[in-house]
Amino acid sequence: MIFSSSLLENAVAEFAKLPGIGKKTALRLVLHLIKQPAGDVDLFSTTVSRMRNEIKFCTRCHNISDKYLCNICANRMRQQHTICVVENFRDVIAIESTQQFNGLYHVLGGIISPLDGIGPEQLKIEDLVLRVNEEEIEEIIFALNPNIQGDTTIYYIGRKLRDVKIKITTIARGIAFGGELEFADEMTLARSITNRIAVEHYIGNGI
Amino acid sequence: MIFSSSLLENAVAEFAKLPGIGKKTALRLVLHLIKQPAGDVDLFSTTVSRMRNEIKFCTRCHNISDKYLCNICANRMRQQHTICVVENFRDVIAIESTQQFNGLYHVLGGIISPLDGIGPEQLKIEDLVLRVNEEEIEEIIFALNPNIQGDTTIYYIGRKLRDVKIKITTIARGIAFGGELEFADEMTLARSITNRIAVEHYIGNGI
Repeated sequence: MIFSSSLLENAVAEFAKLPGIGKKTALRLVLHLIKQPAGDVDLFSTTVSRMRNEIKFCTRCHNISDKYLCNICANRMRQQHTICVVENFRDVIAIESTQQFNGLYHVLGGIISPLDGIGPEQLKIEDLVLRVNEEEIEEIIFALNPNIQGDTTIYYIGRKLRDVKIKITTIARGIAFGGELEFADEMTLARSITNRIAVEHYIGNGI
Repeated sequence: MIFSSSLLENAVAEFAKLPGIGKKTALRLVLHLIKQPAGDVDLFSTTVSRMRNEIKFCTRCHNISDKYLCNICANRMRQQHTICVVENFRDVIAIESTQQFNGLYHVLGGIISPLDGIGPEQLKIEDLVLRVNEEEIEEIIFALNPNIQGDTTIYYIGRKLRDVKIKITTIARGIAFGGELEFADEMTLARSITNRIAVEHYIGNGI
């Protein structure tokens, strides 16, 4: 692409650095911004810049936060005895959006994956063990992606917490709601049979 | 989506205002920026903000520009006697990218479209007529989209320039390179027959 303006060219180049945004999309976004009031564009750029400069990580659960403690950890109305262990911030947002969990989180910042060179020491695992010992934790729920790395991480942390008297659970794995049996992979199907649940639990006591 | 940080939430909301960017994509972009060095994110936001605040429109051709005259108008190496008339900046970028045109441009800023309430007075048509009279223009090439509005605009401007002795042309319309005859609409096919070109022009003098 050949531009008549280096201001335009630079802005397009900056947008095109973002993941999933090519040159053509970047140009479309920039031409959109050119048509917006200057105040709106300034708001856009100061918001983005401020976000990057002022964002903190919660010292307790390592979630993205505005302050020393994130909104979730600071909320005393939430159940303080249950920790949901997740890989990253996105998972916190996903679980929060279900509005089904009222406990606390612990963001590992990744998952044990020797092939990618990620070992336990790069994750916030020691911190989790400390929390379990210091806070009055009754249950840890692992909400990790259902794959080998997720299982390895669960196994590793489970061993670390062997001597602590708490309940350790993992979110259910099985056929997704709306999914079709015949298209499920063998591993998932096998697990969903092994971990079958009583229908009274599933439907409730209504039947 | 429920966020644990209002800084994050605001940044996602700003990105989600951009055309074609939904909340999930916005979140992905923001989480990407969080991982980048603060300097890079500052560069991103100052570049965008500076672009909006400092961008100008070329006083001669109305193209996007950094200065009083755009790079194309200021380039004395370009053919000064041919003006290519286009609807918007994007068309300039598209034509420049072909590297087949070495003249000047005139950006109308739209196209005559009574249904959308756009009349000739909202476009830079008077300016074009002035340019033709003041500069030593020999040829005007219309590179407008091939539709009723494009044709109306060509007709209107053509009438305005009736008394000026210049060559007026339009880019060829026909079956696109790689296109298939059977899928072409009748209008395009009809025109490509009416405006057929001698094969010696098409292939060159080689045959």
